[in-house]
Amino acid sequence: MVEAVETMDGWYSLHDLRTIDWTKWKEAPVHIQEKAIKEFQTLLSSWESVEKNNEGSHCMYHMVGQKADLMFMILRPTMNELAAVETALNKSVLAEFLVPTYSHLSVVELAKYRPQKDGVDPETLPETQERLKPILPKCDHISFYPMSRKRDGDDNWYTLEKDERGKLLYEHSLTGRKYAGKIKQIITGSIGFDKWEWGVTLFTDDVLQLKKIVYEMRFDTATSRYGEFGEFFIGNYLAKEDVEQLLNV
Amino acid sequence: MVEAVETMDGWYSLHDLRTIDWTKWKEAPVHIQEKAIKEFQTLLSSWESVEKNNEGSHCMYHMVGQKADLMFMILRPTMNELAAVETALNKSVLAEFLVPTYSHLSVVELAKYRPQKDGVDPETLPETQERLKPILPKCDHISFYPMSRKRDGDDNWYTLEKDERGKLLYEHSLTGRKYAGKIKQIITGSIGFDKWEWGVTLFTDDVLQLKKIVYEMRFDTATSRYGEFGEFFIGNYLAKEDVEQLLNV
Amino acid sequence: MVEAVETMDGWYSLHDLRTIDWTKWKEAPVHIQEKAIKEFQTLLSSWESVEKNNEGSHCMYHMVGQKADLMFMILRPTMNELAAVETALNKSVLAEFLVPTYSHLSVVELAKYRPQKDGVDPETLPETQERLKPILPKCDHISFYPMSRKRDGDDNWYTLEKDERGKLLYEHSLTGRKYAGKIKQIITGSIGFDKWEWGVTLFTDDVLQLKKIVYEMRFDTATSRYGEFGEFFIGNYLAKEDVEQLLNV
Amino acid sequence: MVEAVETMDGWYSLHDLRTIDWTKWKEAPVHIQEKAIKEFQTLLSSWESVEKNNEGSHCMYHMVGQKADLMFMILRPTMNELAAVETALNKSVLAEFLVPTYSHLSVVELAKYRPQKDGVDPETLPETQERLKPILPKCDHISFYPMSRKRDGDDNWYTLEKDERGKLLYEHSLTGRKYAGKIKQIITGSIGFDKWEWGVTLFTDDVLQLKKIVYEMRFDTATSRYGEFGEFFIGNYLAKEDVEQLLNV
Amino acid sequence: MVEAVETMDGWYSLHDLRTIDWTKWKEAPVHIQEKAIKEFQTLLSSWESVEKNNEGSHCMYHMVGQKADLMFMILRPTMNELAAVETALNKSVLAEFLVPTYSHLSVVELAKYRPQKDGVDPETLPETQERLKPILPKCDHISFYPMSRKRDGDDNWYTLEKDERGKLLYEHSLTGRKYAGKIKQIITGSIGFDKWEWGVTLFTDDVLQLKKIVYEMRFDTATSRYGEFGEFFIGNYLAKEDVEQLLNV
Repeated sequence: MVEAVETMDGWYSLHDLRTIDWTKWKEAPVHIQEKAIKEFQTLLSSWESVEKNNEGSHCMYHMVGQKADLMFMILRPTMNELAAVETALNKSVLAEFLVPTYSHLSVVELAKYRPQKDGVDPETLPETQERLKPILPKCDHISFYPMSRKRDGDDNWYTLEKDERGKLLYEHSLTGRKYAGKIKQIITGSIGFDKWEWGVTLFTDDVLQLKKIVYEMRFDTATSRYGEFGEFFIGNYLAKEDVEQLLNV
Repeated sequence: MVEAVETMDGWYSLHDLRTIDWTKWKEAPVHIQEKAIKEFQTLLSSWESVEKNNEGSHCMYHMVGQKADLMFMILRPTMNELAAVETALNKSVLAEFLVPTYSHLSVVELAKYRPQKDGVDPETLPETQERLKPILPKCDHISFYPMSRKRDGDDNWYTLEKDERGKLLYEHSLTGRKYAGKIKQIITGSIGFDKWEWGVTLFTDDVLQLKKIVYEMRFDTATSRYGEFGEFFIGNYLAKEDVEQLLNV
Repeated sequence: MVEAVETMDGWYSLHDLRTIDWTKWKEAPVHIQEKAIKEFQTLLSSWESVEKNNEGSHCMYHMVGQKADLMFMILRPTMNELAAVETALNKSVLAEFLVPTYSHLSVVELAKYRPQKDGVDPETLPETQERLKPILPKCDHISFYPMSRKRDGDDNWYTLEKDERGKLLYEHSLTGRKYAGKIKQIITGSIGFDKWEWGVTLFTDDVLQLKKIVYEMRFDTATSRYGEFGEFFIGNYLAKEDVEQLLNV
Repeated sequence: MVEAVETMDGWYSLHDLRTIDWTKWKEAPVHIQEKAIKEFQTLLSSWESVEKNNEGSHCMYHMVGQKADLMFMILRPTMNELAAVETALNKSVLAEFLVPTYSHLSVVELAKYRPQKDGVDPETLPETQERLKPILPKCDHISFYPMSRKRDGDDNWYTLEKDERGKLLYEHSLTGRKYAGKIKQIITGSIGFDKWEWGVTLFTDDVLQLKKIVYEMRFDTATSRYGEFGEFFIGNYLAKEDVEQLLNV
Repeated sequence: MVEAVETMDGWYSLHDLRTIDWTKWKEAPVHIQEKAIKEFQTLLSSWESVEKNNEGSHCMYHMVGQKADLMFMILRPTMNELAAVETALNKSVLAEFLVPTYSHLSVVELAKYRPQKDGVDPETLPETQERLKPILPKCDHISFYPMSRKRDGDDNWYTLEKDERGKLLYEHSLTGRKYAGKIKQIITGSIGFDKWEWGVTLFTDDVLQLKKIVYEMRFDTATSRYGEFGEFFIGNYLAKEDVEQLLNV
């Protein structure tokens, strides 16, 4: 039997994408628009407090293309807190003008492919805990995409031995390292939570690097033979104070 | 010819998932909201009576992410009773604010892969009957997903000999046993009822275990070569008395 | 070149599935509801007259799950008569409260795999004519699903020799025979009429048998290697006189 | 490198399928219904003039099943004229009661697989020109379906040598010839215009022949190994003067 | 490990396709229609200014068939400018009558498969810069389609050596050269931006050439074994001054 690798898991994650119903928004009375924006900014501020207390994190992006207009990525220590954030957003006035288009539920994940050093459980290390419960970067651009490992005839990730998988992922990580300083990556695991097995979220101030890294990685065996991808979503950073301008009609 | 394994079948099962139309709900007059909630709780109470009389079972969860907001899992002794429950829900006031998003029709199923002991038909045993007509656990979290066995080139479950299938499922069950005490699993069969062949419903008080068990099982040959999965749905327990708070706007 | 088998074809068939828009129905004035039900029952009565005159047949089922609420299966001698039935239904008042969800167009079909006896064309036999122009059973439960024969790499039904196909279908029919007396099956051909090549409609008074027969047949080579399935629809018999109760809100 | 076969191309073709929104239609005031029908018949008359002048052709069918209620097949010498017809239809009053469900854009196509006789370019022959710019038959029944040639592992049409493709298509044409006098076929090419590579439109006065020809052809190697099909649409001829009756509510 | 080829990247690109809601448009008061058209033409004029200043480019086409009525292709130096164009369009009055149907986000791309001449980085050449930041042709017809390279069993582009890929693409380019003077092609890369890896946009004054080139290329190994295609969209050039006529109802 093939051995699964153990994972370390941190905060629960929700990627929530919505389009703006511009026609409905333009038809809304000004006082409703103002109420919607103000209430929404208050909601964002409450999320900021959570982040300052290190009890979660979030970011908001203005997405490009018709797939979505807004993406929220929300991290929380428990599934119930995550649900509470989603429900609060759903109940907001602004949500009456937003149409859900995609969501992905997962948990920040690190794999234990490499042997532990000195008998120390890596999960107990502070640097691991920081990576499992990360404060999300507020870079200029984001790319999010769900992915899975292929199980198709001879290209079956899950029948590979653990060592072989570790080797392929190590090679894959070398490609990633070339983009150190340019791209920050957060992997969230969603096996058992979603049809797609992982979510990949990339942050950068140079949007072209998002294309370059995904292109280059497509030639790594871990991807070329074993990678399957869902939709890709791209966006520009949207600060709380820029919401009013985006929604100004 | 390959031999099918016999199944034992219990209560009929309906997984019914719906999203809440929050905008419409917020626009409803307070007396309609109150009527909807009260009538809905009365409906839930009637289901509780059925459960107390051991004439069926049910549970309700608040789902996370955009795929659904509510999931009902309903068990009943006959297909007609199941239809009656669905119709009653459809006719309720609350249903006017719910949008159907997914359903799965099946029947609680146990397979007779292992030889009977002492010539006793296992279907007659009280413990079997309890498993076929289970009172659903009310754990903190639920995961539901439909699945099928693959029939694709060399990876064809239905051309494997019965013994080989039994062996693979036994190995698979060993992975499951590691989660004994953490996860309760109910398998419902839907061949002939649905495009997906089975429904898997997992209950737990520790939501991370849902990811860990599905992840670990993905490396079992029964899954890696022969498992096909539909969407995964995750939720938090929603008690009858918490409905009002969830719907409070 | 591989030889096609000749078919015998009878009445044209339309499976028409619709969901009930309960909210709209509940909002309708009582006199509209009454008019809709009365007109609909009159339509059903006219279909019954057709059936009595042996000029066609039909049945109506209340489907379980969100895929559909009602399924009509209609048989008529010509495509134009079939279209006329569909148009009459579309123009009815009740149809304003029904949402089309699926339909399948086909023709009752029997294959001539086995050699004719005594030089008699089997199509001329009365028993064949009865099977090609059947009065649909009014059993308690129905299962309908479209299917095709696979054409995928080595699993290609249409490159098998006629004798091999005949042998596989004969084996397949032996599984079916085990359910004689429990299940009635009507096969309708839809090659050239629909993307799916056949429709399978099963009737039974014991709904569990629908699962058992489809499950057992999945291990027949004709299915395991060569069968492809669409959605499965399950329902309970709905008599004309029970329509009012179903629609009572 | 594999050699492409040259094609001869005639009139541009649009298959335009729509369902009737019966509820909206029934709610329309009688004078709007009358205006819609009259304007629509005027539009059809203008198309008839085009056809009489041999500057294009068209036909209209009443489709069976939920996939569509009406299908227009329109032929025009240029893409701009085709767009003008579509726009005129879209702007019509009747179109307010029609819901677009499918369309296929293509051009009447003949392949030059066989060697030219006597050095004459077949495209210059009058009989070729008639086939490239055909007046569409007004048979009782129509079947339309898009198709492609497979490119999947060993079953790859586009890696076959031109001679092999020509041989397979010749065999395929022999099946077609059996239906001479029963079925008229028009092939339209859509590579570069649509995801599906060709459209096949069959006309007949005996609807059962549509099933028989497609069934028999499925065993030809050109189809069994190399054919991929989209949806199939079937309909009954709808004359201009029968529109009023169809829409009578 | 297989080596990725370096790309040169220019302006960011958005293909934005929308259908016209003719019913809603016809119901709009004349002064709203006039306002919508005037504001839209002002928007187009502002895009023209950008193009004149060589700070971006765009074109607009009237698409044929139901997939879309209008396609905008917009090029801008940054992702933020691209988003600003999309948002301005979304906020326009005309957009209230347009329904988004498809979009594709990418960046103008050239691959460095061939060795550099004389040690000069080709990206620094003026002719390269012109191709990376192109003023879009305003030809009579356009074809747009997304595509990917296959990763399926033995047909896996990403496991081919760089030299082999270069050779196949060179052969492929020879087919393209036959259409020099007839067709202008712009390739935009979307790996990391979209599920489809590239967008292909073809411009021509002879619409039949769009079919001929895509047909002929389908036999190139780069396509027959390694090409995967999405939807194809075809349209006729729509000048700013012809918008009023198109929208005249």
